[in-house]
Amino acid sequence: MEKFLTLNPKEISTHKLHSYLLSAVAPRPIALSSTMDDNMNPNLSPFSFFNVFSANPPIMIFSPARRVKNNTTKDTLDNVLSTKEVVINIVSYEIVEQMSLSSSEYPSSINEFEKAGFTMLESDLIKPFRVKESPVQFECIVQDVVSLGEKGGAGNLVICEIVKIHINKKILNDDLSINPHKIDLVARAGGNFYTRAKKGFFEIPKPISNLGIGFDNLPKKILNSSILSGNDLAKLANVESLPTKDELENFKEDNISIKGKNSHELAKILLQKNDIYKAWKVLLYKD
Amino acid sequence: MEKFLTLNPKEISTHKLHSYLLSAVAPRPIALSSTMDDNMNPNLSPFSFFNVFSANPPIMIFSPARRVKNNTTKDTLDNVLSTKEVVINIVSYEIVEQMSLSSSEYPSSINEFEKAGFTMLESDLIKPFRVKESPVQFECIVQDVVSLGEKGGAGNLVICEIVKIHINKKILNDDLSINPHKIDLVARAGGNFYTRAKKGFFEIPKPISNLGIGFDNLPKKILNSSILSGNDLAKLANVESLPTKDELENFKEDNISIKGKNSHELAKILLQKNDIYKAWKVLLYKD
Repeated sequence: MEKFLTLNPKEISTHKLHSYLLSAVAPRPIALSSTMDDNMNPNLSPFSFFNVFSANPPIMIFSPARRVKNNTTKDTLDNVLSTKEVVINIVSYEIVEQMSLSSSEYPSSINEFEKAGFTMLESDLIKPFRVKESPVQFECIVQDVVSLGEKGGAGNLVICEIVKIHINKKILNDDLSINPHKIDLVARAGGNFYTRAKKGFFEIPKPISNLGIGFDNLPKKILNSSILSGNDLAKLANVESLPTKDELENFKEDNISIKGKNSHELAKILLQKNDIYKAWKVLLYKD
Repeated sequence: MEKFLTLNPKEISTHKLHSYLLSAVAPRPIALSSTMDDNMNPNLSPFSFFNVFSANPPIMIFSPARRVKNNTTKDTLDNVLSTKEVVINIVSYEIVEQMSLSSSEYPSSINEFEKAGFTMLESDLIKPFRVKESPVQFECIVQDVVSLGEKGGAGNLVICEIVKIHINKKILNDDLSINPHKIDLVARAGGNFYTRAKKGFFEIPKPISNLGIGFDNLPKKILNSSILSGNDLAKLANVESLPTKDELENFKEDNISIKGKNSHELAKILLQKNDIYKAWKVLLYKD
């Protein structure tokens, strides 16, 4: 029996709620946002209330929230409100400590590029500088800034349309696609935690083109297995059809050796290797 | 000299642009969104155009985008437009294959809870079911749905206010905070890649309360080191002040043994252990 802690957001402090949100909605991608004030002073600051939301038009959103502790706002917010331009720079492991340093609350007059040791590169279409050390830099026009509230912890949606993309060639494959290992992205989690994406990579083929048989078509014996996990069962449920009688017949002849072994344990090993069709044969053969 | 591939989003296909965005803005957290249509048919589908954006009020946004390939929309979008309610369920490694299965494009009449083997739990305040197997479930009222365009690939911002939070007690620490290892979150990256957050965890203490000296105050000899990386220099630049003369004097007496060794290599080892103050002493001692 699962037991839950149930919370009403209105009945806990913003500080506590903020912590729960940061721990539960993660890992979050990081926008290292480069802006300028009206006097052309550069500003650089990272935000993890950030993601892409649309490809056509290409829209990204980040939120410089009002500070929970004292309800002040960040220079980035003032700058996008007044200039409507921002470069969103993507953060790789190679620059994560510099990115963190740029999040320090230096006075408005201080240039975080200099403090954090980043190189300013001119943009093609807008005034704010790109971060040369970032693997991908998005020049953006701010379409809208939507205030979500007036209290400490209130977000401000900065809705950005991408007008130019710069990708460091060293992270590209030969076909000009981005190599996920070479881009070496990092993201924010709760507390002081970051995660380095490639350290935890695994693949799941997209189940979009085929329609799996689903859990409702799994035999009870398999569904109630004490050995097969939810992930194991999901792999089994994602096949379009089961092995045919002929296939099972051939399999029997080839695999006398599996007799006497526990079919669920054998199937589990095959599923871990993503040999899903063979796992099915083992399971059905023993029935 | 860094070389960049520069792209104008208007000059490449939506399909290609979409791929670049998914590869560059990652890892993305996953909202397993549970909705209902007007006839109380449950629907479940995962979205990685998703994040939290505000703590007060508590706001999350996900985007069921128009499909790039055929410009159709998802049942989830129709449901939130008509009922204004959604449960956003968080995805742990334990349920990642089931979540992926629920992304299959089953007809509207099919219940993805059943197909993907998830258990429907009643919500406290809204009609859509929670996913029992998810470690954190957010009951949400949809404040607004903002269409970002009419073409294939256009996003739809579903702006959700959290009205109730359910957290599985088995992922909590004794003080009721969320344990980042126990919640075991997964996130989406480009292609078929997912990442398991805890496999890549590392910590960076927040530089919020103190103000580091910055790269502009690093001695040239250190700044131009061929041994120290940007991450190494950022750790050095994040101290509030350098060791005093007295501290260096004491250090000299204790550390005659480091004479003759390369101070930058020694400092690099200390920085990897996050012994930043000692790294500074080694660097300054040798000057």
